[in-house]
Amino acid sequence: MERHHFEDDLQALKQRLLTMGALVEERAHQAIAALIHRRLDEAEAVIAADKEVNDFQIEIDDRCLKLLALQQPMATDLRLITSAMKINADLERIGDQAVNIAENTIKLLPQPPLKPLIDIPRMADIAEKMTRDSLDAFVRKDAELARSVLTRDDEVDQLKDQVFRELLTYMMADPGTIQRALALILISRNVERIADHATNIAEDVIFLVEAKDVRHGRENEEVEK
Amino acid sequence: MERHHFEDDLQALKQRLLTMGALVEERAHQAIAALIHRRLDEAEAVIAADKEVNDFQIEIDDRCLKLLALQQPMATDLRLITSAMKINADLERIGDQAVNIAENTIKLLPQPPLKPLIDIPRMADIAEKMTRDSLDAFVRKDAELARSVLTRDDEVDQLKDQVFRELLTYMMADPGTIQRALALILISRNVERIADHATNIAEDVIFLVEAKDVRHGRENEEVEK
Repeated sequence: MERHHFEDDLQALKQRLLTMGALVEERAHQAIAALIHRRLDEAEAVIAADKEVNDFQIEIDDRCLKLLALQQPMATDLRLITSAMKINADLERIGDQAVNIAENTIKLLPQPPLKPLIDIPRMADIAEKMTRDSLDAFVRKDAELARSVLTRDDEVDQLKDQVFRELLTYMMADPGTIQRALALILISRNVERIADHATNIAEDVIFLVEAKDVRHGRENEEVEK
Repeated sequence: MERHHFEDDLQALKQRLLTMGALVEERAHQAIAALIHRRLDEAEAVIAADKEVNDFQIEIDDRCLKLLALQQPMATDLRLITSAMKINADLERIGDQAVNIAENTIKLLPQPPLKPLIDIPRMADIAEKMTRDSLDAFVRKDAELARSVLTRDDEVDQLKDQVFRELLTYMMADPGTIQRALALILISRNVERIADHATNIAEDVIFLVEAKDVRHGRENEEVEK
């Protein structure tokens, strides 16, 4: 296969990763919407859709392996493909977290709402945006955008701690709230993990764009040629 | 570089992954020991050692990238190296979970013990053994051993549910136990995630050894040549 086809294949790979990213982001959004609007059917739809995400992961992994085997790429292209494999794994795990949110939501639904949800949806908004931006940063090789994702992870951690403290107060004041508060705490951890995966993706992008900077001082010249 | 050196490099790569595996397994063991024996110094040592794990991950990733760039391996060797990159990421995240266990332990220590710990140490024993076996399966290309790791993940999930139910009972009976029970629930989730990462590694090994089986029916012939 010629260079021309190789470039097309790399573009197609990026496009598939973006589509996979949009898919898992949509699943996470749907899981949080099921929580907010107390929709059992939506929560079940997220769980049912997991196979689609897994099939997507396998397809993208195959693309990467074939590109590595057939094209024997060097330097930047090589790092692009190995980064794509790692990002693919993180996206699949974001899909897993959407499933976890849906499962925890299903446990909550038989009981009346504990409180209006504010911080968890806010955390989820940030985590979704982080996922989208980390992928945009990958496609555009934009290290600055990737760095902005890393910064936002702290914000998510702070919200997670705030959610924890507030729900702890509920539990201490009224043991009747314990089960619901626990489910919400676990959901906030699921959202936190989505943000962690977006952070992993952003770190991969920074390595891809600025290999020498991230691995401070280590010599990668053999790979760079 | 000749074939001869390439084989040596692959052996060295496997050896480094095993050493990294032993390192993170030891960190997880130390974190659980700190919890059981209520040792602040041990918990702090786990947190302090995280940089060592991260440096290890970077070194192994570099090895993989160099092998891909310089050797342009095909078929099985290619899959071996890309699997090594994925396994490396899972090992690093097992190290992160050891740190999380240590951090949750530090929150527990100022308070008297809630109960004798039985299920969490048992979960941790299984998760550690799963990590070790998944790596042995990788080095020996032993799909059967890898499959046995997958089976044990269910056992860990059952123990996690048991821990959750028991601690919930404590919390409902006495709000004074809520904070400690919560910390223990989070620790049990950290251990569960170690088992999940071992499961990921085992799945990678099965793909490595039996690519066609795992990706049921998909044609990988271009990669196989």
